[in-house]
Formats: sequence, structure tokens, C-alpha cells
Amino acid sequence: MPTREDQLSTDTSFTEFKNSLEQVLQDYCVVQLKKATVQGGGYDELWNSIIRLIKAGGKRLRPYLVAQAYSMYDGEEKLNILPVAAAHELLHLSMLVHDDIIDRDDIRYGILNVSGAYKQRYKHIEVPDSNHHASSAALLAGDVLLSSAYDIILNSRLDASSKVIAAQQIARSVFAVVGGELLDMESVLYELESADPLMIAEYKTAVYSFVGPLQSGALLAGAPEEDCVMLGNYGINLGMAFQLADDMLGVFGDAEITGKSVVSDIKEGKRTYLMQQAYRLATPEQLIVLDKYVGLQSITSEQAEIVRNILQESGALEATRQKIKELSGLAADALTGLRVTAGSIVPLQDLILTVTERDK
Amino acid sequence: MPTREDQLSTDTSFTEFKNSLEQVLQDYCVVQLKKATVQGGGYDELWNSIIRLIKAGGKRLRPYLVAQAYSMYDGEEKLNILPVAAAHELLHLSMLVHDDIIDRDDIRYGILNVSGAYKQRYKHIEVPDSNHHASSAALLAGDVLLSSAYDIILNSRLDASSKVIAAQQIARSVFAVVGGELLDMESVLYELESADPLMIAEYKTAVYSFVGPLQSGALLAGAPEEDCVMLGNYGINLGMAFQLADDMLGVFGDAEITGKSVVSDIKEGKRTYLMQQAYRLATPEQLIVLDKYVGLQSITSEQAEIVRNILQESGALEATRQKIKELSGLAADALTGLRVTAGSIVPLQDLILTVTERDK
Repeated sequence: MPTREDQLSTDTSFTEFKNSLEQVLQDYCVVQLKKATVQGGGYDELWNSIIRLIKAGGKRLRPYLVAQAYSMYDGEEKLNILPVAAAHELLHLSMLVHDDIIDRDDIRYGILNVSGAYKQRYKHIEVPDSNHHASSAALLAGDVLLSSAYDIILNSRLDASSKVIAAQQIARSVFAVVGGELLDMESVLYELESADPLMIAEYKTAVYSFVGPLQSGALLAGAPEEDCVMLGNYGINLGMAFQLADDMLGVFGDAEITGKSVVSDIKEGKRTYLMQQAYRLATPEQLIVLDKYVGLQSITSEQAEIVRNILQESGALEATRQKIKELSGLAADALTGLRVTAGSIVPLQDLILTVTERDK
Repeated sequence: MPTREDQLSTDTSFTEFKNSLEQVLQDYCVVQLKKATVQGGGYDELWNSIIRLIKAGGKRLRPYLVAQAYSMYDGEEKLNILPVAAAHELLHLSMLVHDDIIDRDDIRYGILNVSGAYKQRYKHIEVPDSNHHASSAALLAGDVLLSSAYDIILNSRLDASSKVIAAQQIARSVFAVVGGELLDMESVLYELESADPLMIAEYKTAVYSFVGPLQSGALLAGAPEEDCVMLGNYGINLGMAFQLADDMLGVFGDAEITGKSVVSDIKEGKRTYLMQQAYRLATPEQLIVLDKYVGLQSITSEQAEIVRNILQESGALEATRQKIKELSGLAADALTGLRVTAGSIVPLQDLILTVTERDK
């Protein structure tokens, strides 16, 4: 049951929530843009580059998780927690903007990201300086977005205690993802064996993209602590499955659908679970080929195809699929203990299929 | 009345506050380091590089302002707001770490900053990649520090409303300083005339380093709104005076005392008030020399000395001194309207001399 962009759920109440979310994000950005324009000095342009990115894409997965977890424990209007849902999207965007600096990517959601836009803006300046300044602008954009995640909560109409609870979750998410990003980056610098792709997936993706939003929604709805722990288990396992599926798409996906290169992970020698399994399962002959092509900056599409064949023939692809199945099973199990009506967990059960069997 | 490091005040109650502050910062970092060690994957090393920086320096000016403003309006124990004071120091450190990436500096407080430390750590990797990865580690360190400014407030023993008030001030500070940093960076990329050094000083320095801490302290002590506005005026003017004095020290200071190069601002062609005045006041002959040497990467110390002479002879140095005096006067005036006892404004009056007549 592959999903398409903007179709995380057939639940019409989420469609309404999502429309309101877009409005909340847009309203927030309009206010920031006005403040930036008043402050002056080109700051409005930085906000314009942020706004273009927010409009360009994103499945709004994190807001969806906030909303679903909140709905499970609270019969009340879930529009109340829109600012919290928006905060997780702003945090995500902040991390993407900074991640793109680390990965030296200029494109996100099919458009120029902040670095990319500023490379254009600064093109009259000599390279490599223009690249450095463009990265600096993106660094600043990510900073203000990170702070905006807190700001949108702090200036919402939630009561003070709810604001504190929601903002504490943002802090927990940031702490985890910074360590995860560092690990991901350093895993390429050191030997393949020392990097644990499951640990990278846990801290770089699962904690901030799944656990944080789920626990925020549940806590704000007054869920029992045991349930928050179980939702955390669901989030960790589903988040890791999500990342492993993402890595598979990064090599075997359809570039026209994913919008991402299917060569770059191989070229960069990214330490994914899929690649780890290939090194574990490959024959001595296959290992020689992997050593030759994985991490080769000048790799051709034919050579990448040879690597893809080895990933398949060695059983690495199948092992990754099995691991995704295992993690999905653990995620599903974690839901069964929740003290909610059986019907209310259906959206989170469906989400397991949506995120693991997607094509983009 | 020049000040020495660690002597912002002869007020013994601040000495006690400062000692407690160091403890609060240290305790916070120990907890983060433990969490980072548990998370694993080299994250502890990132926190170690942060901790070294915190220990290495800083006058704790921002915590001092939080404490002074709080004391003016509240007879109660000022140790209550230690976490808020610490938050402003963490925010400052976050901005320094990111500012050093933008300025490509490796040294801060006389030791290797995060980028510098990671360049050492990654030295087995080929340049320019090792530089890029070192900057990326610093990017991540700044991110977690920025979030820590919120985190230390959110997890303090303050009541929820006070936490929200204090955290909102952090958000305001970040919004302003990001625009100020962008302006400062872009001012070097575009024509000298278009950049307003006073505006850079206001947003890059005064708002987050003076206004934010002062208003946090005052608001948490329940100061009247009018007083918060006046403290804001004091902070803006003093902050700009501070920056202008800093720029003077950056060219005419004693490198052994300031710990900073006295050539780099000239070499980088930094758009300071001092330099703006030089371009405004210089004779045609002096202008030719300025155009030749200001912004010259290969500048010698003799050529820098020629620029220094022009700054003096053109009257730019004197004009800057006059501007600092004018701003200091405005700062002093702003204090007179505060609804507090005359004696309680003395520390903030003294601070005007301390920050404008310093030698480091």
C-alpha cells in the first residue's frame, strides 16, 4: 500500500487538521517575515527562502503523529495542539537545512534549499567564498528555525504547563538528533565496522521524527506514563524501519518518484543497514567489487548497477527487508498494550504499512 | 577604569552569584555529558569540546545583567534565577560557536574552539574535507547549545509561567541576533556604504547580549512594563557602545591583553563604525591608501600600521570615541526614569564605564 505525497492518511479529520496546520505555519511565517522586514538588512530574504521551503514540500509526518497521539487520549478538539504540531515541523526543517550543509546538498523538495538559494544570491562573489557565505546563511536560517520550534509553542494559547511540556520534548529531540547527526557524519570518516546503522537510524531519525511528536501529543492529552513509554517503543521501532526503508529507496527507488539520486548513497559510501549487510554477506569476490565502487566519487551508473546487483545477490536487500519486517512487528506489538480503545490505534497500525512500504 | 577578565563588578554579592553560576553551568554540562556518553557514538567528545570552551572563558556579562536587573526589582534571593542567567550564557556560547564557523576562526578564549578541536580530531582526513567535517561538528555543537539555553530554563525549578517568560526572551534574542549576523556577514559582501555599523551593533550584539538578559531579569522580578522598555533603551545604547569599543580594541587594542589579532578586522575589511567614519572623513589621498589596504588578505603589519595612522589622523578614532560617549549618555539617561531606589541603579551606571573603557 504505497503512499503518495500528502496522503499520509485517508482519515478526513486529518485532512482538516493538515489544512489548519498549513495555515498555522503560514501565519507564523508571515509574522516572522514582517518582523524580519522591520529589522531590515536582508533578513526578509532569509525568511523568504525558509518560506519557499516550507511551501515546497514535506509530508507533515511529525504533525500527523502529534495529532494522532493526542486524539487517542483526548476527545477534545485536536486543533488546540496545532502549534505543537507545527513546532515539530519547524524543528524538522531546521534539521534538514543544517543536514544539507553537512551533506553539501543544494536541493530539497525539488527546489533550491537555503544554501542553494544563497549560492545564486551570492554568485557575483568568487567561489569558494560564495559557497562558504551561502552555507553561513543556511546555518543562520537553521538556527532561527530551531528557535522558532520553541517560539511557536511559547507564544501559543496553550496554558503555561502545556507549553513547558511541549517545549521540553523539543529539547529532548534536539539533544538526540544532534548526537545522531554527528554519528552519521563520523561513520563515513571512520571504518565501516565501527558504525552501527541501527543506532544512527535511532538517534538521527526515530527519536526526533517519531518518539518526540508521539510523546508530545500523548503527554498534552494527559496519557498515562506507561502509555508514553509504549508509544516511545512504537516510535523507536517504526522510526528505524522508516530509515531502513528510506535507505533502500535511496539505492533501489525510482528517482523520478523519490526526487533523489539513486547513486549518491553508493557514491558517498553511506553507512546504511543495507550496505552493512552487504559487507557481512558478500562473497570474497563480491567484497572486492564493493571495496572498489562503494565510496567512489567518480562512480558511473553502470558501476552503481553492479553494486545494486551485489546488494541483491548477496542477500543484503532481503536481510534489510526482513529487518524492516521485524522492526515493524515490534512497533505493532508496542501498540497492543496501550490503554485506549482498539479502534483508536488503527491509524498508527496503518502508518506502519504506509512508512515501510512507500515508494518515496 | 579598565576592567580585567572576571571582574565585571566589585559587588561581592555578584561574586557569590558568579560562583553559583559556574556551578550551575558545570552541573548542567555534567548531566549532558553523561546523557551524551549513554547515547554513544562520539557524542561525549562533542560535549567535552563544549565544556572546555565554557571553562576557558567569558566574563559572564549576560548572567551579570540578568542578576542585576532581577535584584533591582526583587528583594528575594537572586539565586532563584541562576538557570535563566546560565541560559543567556549558553545562548551566547552557541552564537560564538556558529559565528566562528562563519568567520572561519579556530581559536576562542585562547583555546581551540569546536571547529578547531575537530580539525585536530579529523586531521587524518584530507583537507578540505577535514575542515568541512570540523565545521559540521561545530554546527551541531552550536545547535545543541542553542537548544540547551531553552532546556536549562525548562528544566529549572521556576514555576511554569516564569519558564515561559524566560524562554520567550531567548526566542526574541535568537530572532534578532540571526538577522544581525546575516547583516554583518552580508555587509562585507556588498558595498561599504550600504552597511550600517550601528544597525549591525544593535542586532548582532545589543539585543541578545544586553536587552535580552536585562529584560529577562526585570520581567521575572515583576518589573513594570515601562521600566522594561527603559531597560531596553539602556541595553540598546550600551550594547552599541560596547560593540564600537570592541571594534576600536580590534584595531588599537593590545593583542596580548585582548587575546585577539589587531590586524584581522583590517584584513577582512570588517564594516565597523570606526572604518565607516574613516571613509567618511578621509582625504582623497587617505582614501586611496584605505582602498588599497582595507580588505587586503596579504596585508603586512606595517601596512596595517599605516591604516591605523589614517584612522587616527582622519579623525575617525575620535569620532568613534564621541559616538561611544553619546551612546553611553543615552544609556545613562534611560536609567534615570526607572522606578527603583537611586542606589540600585549604581551597578548599571558603573557598567557603562566598565564596558566602554575596557582594554579587553
